[in-house]
Amino acid sequence: MTDIVKPSTLPGFMELLPREQILFNEMLDTIKRNYEKYGFLPLDTPVIEKSEVLLAKGGGETEKQIYRFQKGDTDMSLRFDLTVPLARYTVEHFNDLSFPFKRYQIGKVYRGEKAQKGRFREFYQCDIDTIGNEKLSILNDAEFPVVIYHTFKELGFDEFVVKLNNRKILNGFYKELAIEDTVSVLRTVDKLDKIGIDKVKAELLAVGVSEENADKILNFITIEGTNKEIIKQLENLGIENESFKEGVSELTTVIDCIGGYGVPETNYRVDLKVARGLDYYTGTVYETELVNYPEIGSVCSGGRYENLASYYTDKKLPGVGISIGLSRLFYQLNQANIIEAKRESLTDVMVIPMDEYEMDSIKLAAKLQEAGIATTVYTEKAKLGKKFKYADALNIPYTIVVGENEVQTGKYAIKDMAKQEQESLTIEQIIEKLK
Amino acid sequence: MTDIVKPSTLPGFMELLPREQILFNEMLDTIKRNYEKYGFLPLDTPVIEKSEVLLAKGGGETEKQIYRFQKGDTDMSLRFDLTVPLARYTVEHFNDLSFPFKRYQIGKVYRGEKAQKGRFREFYQCDIDTIGNEKLSILNDAEFPVVIYHTFKELGFDEFVVKLNNRKILNGFYKELAIEDTVSVLRTVDKLDKIGIDKVKAELLAVGVSEENADKILNFITIEGTNKEIIKQLENLGIENESFKEGVSELTTVIDCIGGYGVPETNYRVDLKVARGLDYYTGTVYETELVNYPEIGSVCSGGRYENLASYYTDKKLPGVGISIGLSRLFYQLNQANIIEAKRESLTDVMVIPMDEYEMDSIKLAAKLQEAGIATTVYTEKAKLGKKFKYADALNIPYTIVVGENEVQTGKYAIKDMAKQEQESLTIEQIIEKLK
Repeated sequence: MTDIVKPSTLPGFMELLPREQILFNEMLDTIKRNYEKYGFLPLDTPVIEKSEVLLAKGGGETEKQIYRFQKGDTDMSLRFDLTVPLARYTVEHFNDLSFPFKRYQIGKVYRGEKAQKGRFREFYQCDIDTIGNEKLSILNDAEFPVVIYHTFKELGFDEFVVKLNNRKILNGFYKELAIEDTVSVLRTVDKLDKIGIDKVKAELLAVGVSEENADKILNFITIEGTNKEIIKQLENLGIENESFKEGVSELTTVIDCIGGYGVPETNYRVDLKVARGLDYYTGTVYETELVNYPEIGSVCSGGRYENLASYYTDKKLPGVGISIGLSRLFYQLNQANIIEAKRESLTDVMVIPMDEYEMDSIKLAAKLQEAGIATTVYTEKAKLGKKFKYADALNIPYTIVVGENEVQTGKYAIKDMAKQEQESLTIEQIIEKLK
Repeated sequence: MTDIVKPSTLPGFMELLPREQILFNEMLDTIKRNYEKYGFLPLDTPVIEKSEVLLAKGGGETEKQIYRFQKGDTDMSLRFDLTVPLARYTVEHFNDLSFPFKRYQIGKVYRGEKAQKGRFREFYQCDIDTIGNEKLSILNDAEFPVVIYHTFKELGFDEFVVKLNNRKILNGFYKELAIEDTVSVLRTVDKLDKIGIDKVKAELLAVGVSEENADKILNFITIEGTNKEIIKQLENLGIENESFKEGVSELTTVIDCIGGYGVPETNYRVDLKVARGLDYYTGTVYETELVNYPEIGSVCSGGRYENLASYYTDKKLPGVGISIGLSRLFYQLNQANIIEAKRESLTDVMVIPMDEYEMDSIKLAAKLQEAGIATTVYTEKAKLGKKFKYADALNIPYTIVVGENEVQTGKYAIKDMAKQEQESLTIEQIIEKLK
């Protein structure tokens, strides 16, 4: 007798049933296809890295959440994002790469954070980044909303907005107001949609912002209009700060180029509330919102950073990138029943042998396969009803029963499982029908 | 000043340059597509599992090689194969699955074995398995060589052989000879191709096999001919052992069905030397050899097992499966320069803006993208020669320079980078040409 161990996964680790996995993979493939179409090269770095490399920056939440362990004399850790491995990769393989280096990576990352609903300890990130050698044109910043636009369209979404801002505008604006604790202000401002304008003002005053500045801030973050109108209003604020002016100029270029790429105005919008990773991003910043599901939060975020890999090299490697947190997105869309697979089954047809007609079934399946039709043969001895039930459970759209009559006449009854209709066709006609 | 950490990966962890990654992904996609076409459902289990679950079987090399660690109170390990997770999954989700449960999984597994050339500590396995509930028809065993045949054909190989045997034949045969130390005999016999018949005989005698039995064994393992001839000779041995007879009958069915699926005789062959995983497989066993590269060894192996998940359930779950060790295969093929990508670049065309013609370049790129042509725009200020060099380094097949003349005439000089030829075409003509 063997002792039975209860089979279960660790909490916070997503695992899907096959029909969900088909849908997940469909989304992943769509993202991959779009990333590739825009010239991003594939990377696949190891899940495990040297701890000293992964934690070169160190500090804070990262160190606490990381899965770190020893094996022999080696101190190793599981990657917690795809950006640090990209930095390591870019420096390590610098001489073999061409710059601007455009890469995508889709893979699992690991964070041992507190398990809670919709948060995962193992989750997919789908990243694209463009890295420059010493410098990188602002034109690159315009490409990411374009890729994301096409990706989300193809994922089946219509109503979504890539929200854009530029950290230089924020830095310049707050400098002009002589505000020092920018972090507290940005955090407060970020709550506008949730708590409303009055509470934001109260909180601003509470963190020591003057009445006059609070009004200026509220006036600033509620600037509205078309993208061009917003830019116009920013220019009209009369702020002479260099950073501010540079930010407005960059944002103007980005907006213009996204338009040039043909993205409709409704799908990208300047939003002066967007700030993101306060100590990391230095220019353009992105967030993406599903208009009808604002409670999901940003489904795709990123921005421009000054220097990718200062922990690994003295070379300056500016970059810009964006990331889709696919596991979390999938979980939320699935929970809300928003998405459905284009094909609930990857198999087009199941061939069901009667009694001794297994070999004939196999030969039929081979012909259908050859014609490019995904075909499987039911292999077990069972009653016909059970075989149909199996095909139904797997959402296989068509079944063909093969018995004496079929083999003699060369005509096969093909059954549409959804409509519960069947017709009698030759192999050629079946191929014609299913292609 | 930041301290610089030398960026490097751990030994035994494969990492590819983008052009190699394109090729690797092409192989992976081919495998995936073929697995799906034959009705195998996708799974994606977590890389980390509870140690008690993963090590339920325990013992031996596995325990030594596993990456195991604590996080908080949790004892966790990285998966070392995809079979144990499949067992855990099948039992955990038993009530949500339909049997026979056909699944594929392609993913990384981890083994902290001694680092050596061509062996990896993180590597891809590409597994397909079919699991039965209590029983599983022998017809399933025939499907794996068929899938592997189509997969390897599509991977670009012509000369390969799926070698087949059945453990019941071996068990019965050695029982008939009253040989007890079957393990030593099978190990010796396995060396035939390497050390030749005389040395095998000497070794057999050395492990205590009688002269008469040694001759019988050598006679048995050197049975040759077509698949049908080999079966005939096995039947003619006059062995009455039940296991032997059952094995021959199963092998006959498998051979016949593979033929029925249309696989050419040259690509599958009964080989009585094939034994595989001595304590695991109980029926059909597979190995796959690239005929012109026998030194690579088996590139795809598997077989039938009696019970998948005895450590997790009292239910009997017989299965059959096969696995491609993609990382190792890729490494060896790449080293031997055997493979090349169908497309060395995923990008069809790079648009190169002259001076101030960035917006025109973007608009052109958008039109090409819309027509389904993978297009990228060169974004940096640089001399024209450097831009062409960049396109060349990325193996992008076509470039289009956009300047005043192009915008005014609506005709664009498209350059074939390999042939170093260019022609002047309208956008419509370019789309026509590249599609």
